Parts: sequence; C-alpha cells; structure tokens
Amino acid sequence: MAKRTASTHQSWLPEANQPTTDFPLTHLPYGAFEHEGQQRLCVAIGAHLLDLHACATSGLLPPTLIEACQAPILNPFMALGHRSWTLLRETVTTLLHADVNADRRQTAEAALHSIAGATLGRPIHIPNYTDFYASIYHATRVGQLFRPDQPLLPNYKHVPIGYHGRASSIIPSGIPVVRPIGQTRPLPEQVQPNFIPTNALDYELELALYIGQPSLIGSSVPISQATQHLFGIGLLNDWSARDIQSWEYQPLGPFLAKNFATSISPWVTPMVALEPFRAPASSRPATDPKPLPYLHSVTDQQQGNLNAKLEVFISTDTMRKNKLAPFLLSESNASDLYWTPAQLIAHHTSNGCNLQVGDVLATGTTSGPPEASAGCLLELTRNGAQPILLPTGESRTFLADGDEIILRGSCEAPGHPRIGLGECRGTILPARTS
Amino acid sequence: MAKRTASTHQSWLPEANQPTTDFPLTHLPYGAFEHEGQQRLCVAIGAHLLDLHACATSGLLPPTLIEACQAPILNPFMALGHRSWTLLRETVTTLLHADVNADRRQTAEAALHSIAGATLGRPIHIPNYTDFYASIYHATRVGQLFRPDQPLLPNYKHVPIGYHGRASSIIPSGIPVVRPIGQTRPLPEQVQPNFIPTNALDYELELALYIGQPSLIGSSVPISQATQHLFGIGLLNDWSARDIQSWEYQPLGPFLAKNFATSISPWVTPMVALEPFRAPASSRPATDPKPLPYLHSVTDQQQGNLNAKLEVFISTDTMRKNKLAPFLLSESNASDLYWTPAQLIAHHTSNGCNLQVGDVLATGTTSGPPEASAGCLLELTRNGAQPILLPTGESRTFLADGDEIILRGSCEAPGHPRIGLGECRGTILPARTS
Repeated sequence: MAKRTASTHQSWLPEANQPTTDFPLTHLPYGAFEHEGQQRLCVAIGAHLLDLHACATSGLLPPTLIEACQAPILNPFMALGHRSWTLLRETVTTLLHADVNADRRQTAEAALHSIAGATLGRPIHIPNYTDFYASIYHATRVGQLFRPDQPLLPNYKHVPIGYHGRASSIIPSGIPVVRPIGQTRPLPEQVQPNFIPTNALDYELELALYIGQPSLIGSSVPISQATQHLFGIGLLNDWSARDIQSWEYQPLGPFLAKNFATSISPWVTPMVALEPFRAPASSRPATDPKPLPYLHSVTDQQQGNLNAKLEVFISTDTMRKNKLAPFLLSESNASDLYWTPAQLIAHHTSNGCNLQVGDVLATGTTSGPPEASAGCLLELTRNGAQPILLPTGESRTFLADGDEIILRGSCEAPGHPRIGLGECRGTILPARTS
Repeated sequence: MAKRTASTHQSWLPEANQPTTDFPLTHLPYGAFEHEGQQRLCVAIGAHLLDLHACATSGLLPPTLIEACQAPILNPFMALGHRSWTLLRETVTTLLHADVNADRRQTAEAALHSIAGATLGRPIHIPNYTDFYASIYHATRVGQLFRPDQPLLPNYKHVPIGYHGRASSIIPSGIPVVRPIGQTRPLPEQVQPNFIPTNALDYELELALYIGQPSLIGSSVPISQATQHLFGIGLLNDWSARDIQSWEYQPLGPFLAKNFATSISPWVTPMVALEPFRAPASSRPATDPKPLPYLHSVTDQQQGNLNAKLEVFISTDTMRKNKLAPFLLSESNASDLYWTPAQLIAHHTSNGCNLQVGDVLATGTTSGPPEASAGCLLELTRNGAQPILLPTGESRTFLADGDEIILRGSCEAPGHPRIGLGECRGTILPARTS
C-alpha cells in the first residue's frame, strides 16, 4: 500500500478525523454485525460500521472479493491471502477517503450504520485456540506466589510456553459469564475436595493474534516468514478460576479453570494498520540467553513487538447504581512481552503442528515490570492477600457477581493517528446451583 | 431397537456372519470413503462398505435422513439426535439382514464396495479434542518414573485429569507421521537446550469418544444423562515426544510434544453396538475415596466401563522386508480405566464448558494393572531403560523411522457376535531437517 502522510488520512466522515476516535481511516478493523437475522461482515470507521455485504451488492468492491465479503464470517476472505487483504483495504480506504467522488460516497453512505445501534458478533470462526505465557513479568510474579524459591522455571527463557485452550467456549464481548462450579483442594481437616462455585474468579488481559495464512502439517514456519501468517489482532479475556486451577493443574495443565469461557473483542485490527506501532522486544536483557536460532531474527528483536497500551477496568453493581465510571485496575503495554508474535508462530509450528485460518494465538497475561501493571487479580492482589480498594469503598480480592470487566487497547506514535482496539467486556453472573 | 438373539444376526452377506469378522450385522460402524474425488459416508459390513449416499439416492433410506446421509461428514446426521440414530441403524440393519426382500437386497448390493479397495477418510469433523488421563495404572507408572516418592498426585482419585489437545493435527489412520523436531533439556554441561529431532518418539493407545449431542455453555451434563451425549467410539494414537514433553510441560502441560499429530481410526462404532460389552468400573477399590456426587452414579460404577480388548502392534522396516507379521507390543482392556466415559463427560461440563457435535474426548493411555499391559513405550521400556527385543533381533526403547504402529480393538461377550474396532495405523517418517 502506498504510504500516506498524516494529513492525507482524512475521511469524508468528520468523526473519523477526530483524534479521540478508535477507528480513523488508517485503522479499518473488521467486524460482524446482525442484519435482519443474518450476520454480515463490516469495517469500523469513526462511530459507524460499513456493511461489506451491502458494498459488495452495490458494486463498490472488486469482483474477486464479492463472494468472500458476502459471507457471514471473515475466514473465506482471510483464506484468499495477502493480495486480497491489500485489495480490500485499499478499496475501502479509497471509498471512505475525503477525495472519493460523490457517487461512490453516496453509495457508501447507504451502507453505513451506527456502531452504537448495532449488535456486534464474532467475525472469525476460530478452529483452534492456543494460549501462550509470553510475559516474563506475569510468569515471574505468579511463580513467586507458588514457588518462592524458584519463581521462573528453567525452561522459560528458552521455550515460549503455551497450551491449548478451548475453542468452543470463546464468546463475543458482552455475553455474560456464569461463575463456574468446580473442585477445590480439600482444606487441612477435609478428606474430600469441595465442589463449589469458584471463590477466586479472575480475568486475564491478553492480546489475540489471528492466523490468516495456514501452514501444513509436518512443515514449520521460519521466523522470518512468521508474521506473514498473521491477519490481525484483538483483545482477549482468559477468565480463570484460580482455586480450581491450583487443584487440577498437575500434571497436565489448566483445564476446567479456564475453559468455561474466554471473551474476545468484536474488532479485528489488520496487521498492516499496526505497522507504525512496531516496537523492539526489549524485555529480554542482553544478559539473558539468546533465543535458539529458530526463534531468533534481528529484525524481530528490533521491531517484532507491538507498542499497544492495554487497560483493564472494573464496573461493579454499586458503581453502576451510583453512575460511577469504570475504575482502572491496571495498565500495561504489549511491548513488554518477552516473546514476540513471530516467535510464538515459529515455535508453534516448529514441530510440524499445522495452523488453520482463523486460529487464535493468545499472548497470555500482558503484565508489565511494575506490580501495578499486572494484567490479572492473582498478581494485583497477591492471590487475594492484598485486596484492591475501589472508589465506592468496596474491595476486591477476586471478582464478585455483577462485576463487569472491560479491556481496552490503543496504539499511539508520533505523526500517526491514534487507533483504538475497541473493548472486550464481560459481566459475572451468579453460579447456577440447580 | 428390538432385541435380536444371536441366531437372528444373519446377514445375506456371508462374510458378515463369520466369527472372525470385525464388522458383523450387530456392529455397523460409520465411516467415510473417497468416491470420484468426493467424500461419502458409509457403514461397514463384513469386508465391504455400504455407500450411504448411494442408499439415499436409490430410495433405501427414510426421507428425513436423505440429506444428512448425502453429506460428506457425519456431523449433520449426529446433530439430528437419537431418534435419527436409531432410525438409520434400524434401516441399515433391516437392509443387510438375511430376511430382506430381493429387490431391496439388489439395490443395496449395488451400493457395496470392498473395504480393501477403498480409500477411507475421517467421517467426523472434530471441532474440539480433549485428552484425559483415565488409567490409574498409566498415571502411577509414569509418576514412578518422574516422581518416585509421590507417583500418584493427590488430585488423581478425585479429578478426572484432562487437558485440551490440538484438533487441527488429528489425522486419519494410514497417514504417515513426520518425526518432530523440538527443544530438549540442556545436558549437564550445556547452557542452551538442544533443538533436534526427538529421540523419544512414543505412541499412546487410547479410545476416542465422539460427542453426538451438544451441551450449552454455562450448563452442565448430569452423570445420569452423560452417556446420552455419546455417539460412538474409535481408536486413537496420541503420538508423544517424551524428551520434548519433559522439557516443555512445566507449568502449563504438554504442547509441542503432542500436537504434531494424533491418528484416529476410520470406523466409528455406535454406542448402541457396545451395549452387550458394558463392564463395571472395577479399578476403583472400595478403599479409595468415593467420587464426588457429580461424578458418582451406581449404574455407572456397575456398568459404565467398556469391555474392549485393545492391542498395539509394531511393524519395523526389517520386519516388513522379512515378511514377518506385526509384533504385539502390549494388550490392555478399556474396562481397567479408573474414570468412565460418563464421568469424563460430567466432569468436562461441570464448570459450564460446552460440548459440540463431533468433539473427541480421548481416554488417555489405556494401560492395565500388569506392566506388560502398558499402552506406551514410556511405561513398557521404563523411559528407555529396558529396551524391547523384537523377533528380528532389533530392539526398541522408543520408535525408529520406518516403524509402523497398529492399534486394534475388539469386544467379546458370551452370546454375542464379536465386534472389532478396526485398526489405527501410522508410520514414522524421518524428521525434515531442511
């Protein structure tokens, strides 16, 4: 795509040119919305969404993209590959640009809907979901809680640790989460474990990386080509029940502590929109072991991370009753991740495991160096030992019923319009005790 | 379905009445085969397969089943539910029964193909794959190798331990498996881990349980209803690289050690065909803690397991060159599992995790009480310390390139024709070193 200067990023939609918008002309994330009982694909611009199905029907899109843009999910379009990704982005950019001719602008205007009035869905079918553990700050602080003598395991600086999550229970932002019931460790005087609603319900602030180009079983993706397989990113909340987790996870890892629900944000930011916000992989000090060759690339170390500010807010029942704004629990930055997206892809495929179009690779909790930047309550409250005081006078060790968790993300760089990743929301419902 | 006595289980296909066949009239497992470049569904009978697409087209099936039986995968049929499952099974049973009229028999004969001449595929799309750890003998012997002081962890007798496997890399029986490359623990004098083709490639003998009825997110399946959600079973080989596994698995469980490939057998035996082979959950002695109420049912403890003999054979390059038959490595029985299929389903959904049509729940390695009945080389060779001597004079600690592993299963009970689960095969190809 031809480079544009900041001054040329003007849309005919004035709201898209406001510095506060999440969705300027340089962003154009993909989403899906409900239209007369069917799901349709769309692109966000300012406070509106552009209906891609309508654009395809009214002749605004190139013929090769029509069928994919009329599908209810983005996977067929993603499978078309990079040329088509560029073609659609160029087409939509031109269509929404201030310089477009009046005819095309009028046709596009007919395909615009207010985001506020729309029901957003999940644009991508996710065949497989992998969750990594890419923040060394998160891994170290969690380790300090459970293994004070050896917080960071010997493999961490060599292996991008990951595990398979559950794809079936990935839910769109806004769908409530029922507090899970599960087994917890027997108390000292007990013989049997308890089977109760979790008392340690937590969120995890993560980035979701969407795979756009598949890889074949038995073959691996070299790190130099890894980002070519990425389509875009979103926000992800890997809800976790810490008491269930600590009892079940030996020796095969987390299972029911995680697979009751994972929330994902509605907008998928294409990688090309993130080019101005690349960052070095700075959390690996020179004194740390160098990554093995299959995980090492100078380019990747210099610009393989993403400068994205990530925030977590909480809104309790009491806060909403008192019309208080959501309270910021913590703020971190994805550039503090120890392992880059390219390293995660190179590692995942290094043994010949195949990636499919739409797969999600999540980063794991994106905690930063200071304790206050931790991306989950387990760290922030030191496993419940240090409650967080909220402006209402309430306190939290873990989540209470009625609590809503809101993840937000944004990217800023000099000379470029700010972009926002939108929100990922979820509210806790009481456990079902029937 | 009306009960038939053994003497009434006669097919007009003589081979289906031989006591040695895997596929008598009482079995009728579902499969898929390649027909003029398309995948079609079928049912096995004797040495033949009955083309369900052809049966549907030629008017042999009830109208409500035609569309589902013409699909390339079984999932739409599974989603129709129990009444349709019974209806199709009754229809095919009648069609292949000795008493069928000449017209229908002739039409059915036109839909028969030799299994030996067919290319079998994977009949079920598997949206999610969970692997359990249901054999206490396997868990104990593996524990003895790595934690001699505490072989069985405190949670084992309470929690049906499981983890999410990788659905994308489940491959049909017969597809070769490329030896994976991966990180292994640094040797004592090394600073960096190694990145090499695994030196500890293993198989795991398992049963695959196919989910036929979904469950909703946020709701759980009571143990009394759990088997209603099961459609059928197959054989599964959870290939494992033990050296990669031991280095990567802390703290989040197995990942690249397992997800390079999982082989699954072509035939899906419906649960109803397994009724005569139910067995008690006998490996939980009365002195063990009683399962928590959500995992306990008297009926399930009395007949929730399956009396299925499971065997592993190896065929090396040298054995094939010398025309030697595959060598039996071990034999176990699924009735020795500590956790029953119903308990696995009740546990998996106890936190509200949703099941989807086609999901696979695998049992984990089905090892029995004697060491010789272990379902993997890790146990049989004590992590390589005790090589197995083969009839050719070769020995194995773990698998060599060219080795083919063949899983077989069968069920026998007095007064009932024996049924065979067919085979699950895979041959090891050398690592790709490019």
